[in-house]
Amino acid sequence: MRVDVPLPKAYLLINHGPVTLVSSRAGERRNVMAAAWAMGLDFDPPKVAVVIDRNTLTRELVNASGEFALNVPPRALAQAVVDVGTASGREVDKWSRFGIGTLPAARISAPLVAGCIAWLECRVLDERPTEQKYDLFLAEVVAASADDRVFSGGRWHFGDESLRSLHYVAGGQFFTTGESLSVVTGP
Amino acid sequence: MRVDVPLPKAYLLINHGPVTLVSSRAGERRNVMAAAWAMGLDFDPPKVAVVIDRNTLTRELVNASGEFALNVPPRALAQAVVDVGTASGREVDKWSRFGIGTLPAARISAPLVAGCIAWLECRVLDERPTEQKYDLFLAEVVAASADDRVFSGGRWHFGDESLRSLHYVAGGQFFTTGESLSVVTGP
Repeated sequence: MRVDVPLPKAYLLINHGPVTLVSSRAGERRNVMAAAWAMGLDFDPPKVAVVIDRNTLTRELVNASGEFALNVPPRALAQAVVDVGTASGREVDKWSRFGIGTLPAARISAPLVAGCIAWLECRVLDERPTEQKYDLFLAEVVAASADDRVFSGGRWHFGDESLRSLHYVAGGQFFTTGESLSVVTGP
Repeated sequence: MRVDVPLPKAYLLINHGPVTLVSSRAGERRNVMAAAWAMGLDFDPPKVAVVIDRNTLTRELVNASGEFALNVPPRALAQAVVDVGTASGREVDKWSRFGIGTLPAARISAPLVAGCIAWLECRVLDERPTEQKYDLFLAEVVAASADDRVFSGGRWHFGDESLRSLHYVAGGQFFTTGESLSVVTGP
């Protein structure tokens, strides 16, 4: 079940460096692309940084709307990550083409990607020089949610292998998120 | 054995989102801190983005030198990651305190962290407003190397569990990099 994640805990949804899907919408146009280059930027209010290439339809929609969502796909969606990372939203509606479902966001108009395990709804911060020079977008997270089968109480707890998050390498290769390991903190 | 990684392949060393150690030096002063918020920013020439808090000694040394290294620690260094992420370089020399060895870098004066599995030597790009407003540093990778037991020929190949990279969550908890998974790319 998709449940809200308190904003000060939202950074935990991508802190371990999973690949993300960026979903966007402007008017009747919508798109989804893959982004390995996404990370936390601040805790509270939570902020994120993500690279969105200037030649993508996503860039156009994000520039028009000032919004996007970062969706964290599980292993079960690995093929979809590569498919939406390869196709262009200018040529096909990737949602229909690859059979990807949508969920309504709470605070933004972009659709969320169904079947993902975590969602960060983001509003772009006004840093046009950084966008234009580096394709780098900085954004505030305005709502967050997660699938409580794998994230609840502020913690990830992967059990079902098909629900593990993914870390992208290149050429269709991923690593799944592996085993949990805890070490002693402080004196 | 530590071997050079060609610069166009350097992004692969952190593309899967591992936690990093940021090492730095200015004159006789040196430091090392943990950074989960580090990612690729461009392929060739390779660039990276990393968050370095304004209150850290690392920030002072990076500002003074214009350089830092991103070191990718393996599982065997998990305790050291948390130790250097907790202590302050203003109070102790973390290298001595936690028994962390150094390696000479090829192109920068900051020391590299011995026992890591990959190293990105970086020169800071002049983006002071972004640094000052968001603690976000953008840098060009000027040299890269990796332990060829786990990275060679442009690919990660984890075998020895102690040499797997780590993904940081919070509170001393990590995930190790899990199993490899490949899907079909393109038609």
